Amino acid sequence: MSETRYDWLADRWVIFAPHRSQRPDEFVTVGPINYSANAVCPFCLGQEHQTPGEVLALPRGAGLRIPWQVRVVPNKYPALEPLPEFLEQPSYKHYRGEGVSLKQTGSVATLVTTELPKTSVLFNRRKLQGAHEVIIESPEHLNSLTEVSESHALLVFEAYRRRLIHWRAHDSLHYSVVFKNVGPEAGASLSHTHSQLIATNFVPPDVQRSCERQQQYRESHARGYFEDMIAQELIAKDRIVLQSPNFVAVVPFASQIPYFIWIIPRVQQARFEEVSDKKLAEFSTIVRRVLRALETLFPNVAYNFVLHTSPFNECWDRVFHWRMEVFPRLTKVAGFEWGSDCFINPVLPEFAAKQLAKWA
Amino acid sequence: MSETRYDWLADRWVIFAPHRSQRPDEFVTVGPINYSANAVCPFCLGQEHQTPGEVLALPRGAGLRIPWQVRVVPNKYPALEPLPEFLEQPSYKHYRGEGVSLKQTGSVATLVTTELPKTSVLFNRRKLQGAHEVIIESPEHLNSLTEVSESHALLVFEAYRRRLIHWRAHDSLHYSVVFKNVGPEAGASLSHTHSQLIATNFVPPDVQRSCERQQQYRESHARGYFEDMIAQELIAKDRIVLQSPNFVAVVPFASQIPYFIWIIPRVQQARFEEVSDKKLAEFSTIVRRVLRALETLFPNVAYNFVLHTSPFNECWDRVFHWRMEVFPRLTKVAGFEWGSDCFINPVLPEFAAKQLAKWA
Repeated sequence: MSETRYDWLADRWVIFAPHRSQRPDEFVTVGPINYSANAVCPFCLGQEHQTPGEVLALPRGAGLRIPWQVRVVPNKYPALEPLPEFLEQPSYKHYRGEGVSLKQTGSVATLVTTELPKTSVLFNRRKLQGAHEVIIESPEHLNSLTEVSESHALLVFEAYRRRLIHWRAHDSLHYSVVFKNVGPEAGASLSHTHSQLIATNFVPPDVQRSCERQQQYRESHARGYFEDMIAQELIAKDRIVLQSPNFVAVVPFASQIPYFIWIIPRVQQARFEEVSDKKLAEFSTIVRRVLRALETLFPNVAYNFVLHTSPFNECWDRVFHWRMEVFPRLTKVAGFEWGSDCFINPVLPEFAAKQLAKWA
Repeated sequence: MSETRYDWLADRWVIFAPHRSQRPDEFVTVGPINYSANAVCPFCLGQEHQTPGEVLALPRGAGLRIPWQVRVVPNKYPALEPLPEFLEQPSYKHYRGEGVSLKQTGSVATLVTTELPKTSVLFNRRKLQGAHEVIIESPEHLNSLTEVSESHALLVFEAYRRRLIHWRAHDSLHYSVVFKNVGPEAGASLSHTHSQLIATNFVPPDVQRSCERQQQYRESHARGYFEDMIAQELIAKDRIVLQSPNFVAVVPFASQIPYFIWIIPRVQQARFEEVSDKKLAEFSTIVRRVLRALETLFPNVAYNFVLHTSPFNECWDRVFHWRMEVFPRLTKVAGFEWGSDCFINPVLPEFAAKQLAKWA
């Protein structure tokens, strides 16, 4: 059983997932993750038995030479406990059968009972439930989303859209996010190109705050924060990486880390999953151009992206602006940053944007 | 010239310090920092000419066999611009003479003028000034604060105390923090044991919020947050690493990362630098026992510590509780954490505390 604990001082929740230490990379203490530890990659075609059963495979249809190009499966080592109703489904058989639990394995003792103790101001915890899925982006052992064809890449974004639509329909869930970890520096445990989806029964406080800030801006400016920002960035020109009819890629004025990039629809739309087919294809192209520019500037770069879509509550429909954040992991976060949450960025956004624009 | 830029959406300031790319480690793109890049360590005895002139050396006194055990110098690559009055001092000669500026070196174009443009809601920036110092903890090339003698270590903490007292007296500064980066994973660019001090002309919003939360707790509970927390932790016993007459080391209930440790005085005191000689020695011992336990569990562990002392405004004197945070860098922060500011911790604090307590 997963649980979240409340940090009263910082006003944030932390997820505890001790069973995650069973992941292929195990609990890494010193040095880089051993990427080649797995002799046979569980995400490759023919290795489907190594993962839980699929919940989506694209393209659909009979008579295909290869059974899937993009495959979505429950994460074998989920960060949060599946909703009880899932446990009846074949894809979650591993979860029941293999007894993944809050118990830590190996030398790690069992320290948490299945009953949550009474909560208090200082020691407040709650049960965390939801979904944690892996989007396997290619049957071949490729390392980047930029290595597949244009039409294949579109299937990846189509999978995001379908799974987000799926999870939004669940009454007990309130928030969902798609993200990608590339390279050990970015927290990836496997190199085969993939992304992940987490859906939770609570909205993380930071996401909630971002919604509230966007609402506050709209109330005081009668326009959206991102719409205003894009308008001003297009005048300033200094931080634009790339433009297309419906999207802008920009290095934010106050980027916390070098080469951070926002990819944003020009017009406010709360839910990525409601994007039209045409815009989805355009977005897929823009994302890959940005990633390719990053990979050209920094070969084998470790990075993350996060696809922010509105929490499920309809109150944000006219407020939230869906977007993607791409953040390469070029520098280390050091003591001062951790201590003050005030980042020191050694690269000016204007310089980063200029470099990226050359290759995008 | 350094500048800070305001991220309106996240309500936080980011420091831009492009001249930091001149540091010995340069701007690292892929792979670990080359620790041995410097043939001769600039922090070793006899290499004093490689650093700016010292602002403090301990012990003081004539006739010492070795001229210093602990040495404090301005950071050669400061994250923020020295206050104008410093530039007249010999220790800052390098800053004027070598023309460290916001201009990026090498292939990096000059993109920022020395005049800050007008601010707006979205593009708000301000000049950042203050101090950035390095505390060199040993004349020998040692890699850990645990390798020096007990009396030598006390000089390190004494240096922290003296420099914090020094900076608090400056009217134009409002906040100061001491921190330590150990290992490339923790953002260190040199392996010779050292720590750093930053003093700024603004209080980082996150620090301000922490002060306000402590005040809020005190108003609603008539006791301090940390005093209550310690009392309850001592009853629960599950997360205690170590106790001494005046200090408690504990793994917080809602730790964001594995093996995070707080070292806290039992009784509220706002300013570390006002600690008595006796308590300073006790604190030095406790810190080293905690670090030694960490190093025993995880040899060559990369970690940071941050010594939080009250911002300079006297309004926090009865509210703020000074403390040290020690955070080993055992795991990577991945996409979900960055996207939601909601961390997934694979190790329960109760387990981490038990392991640390064995060796502390």
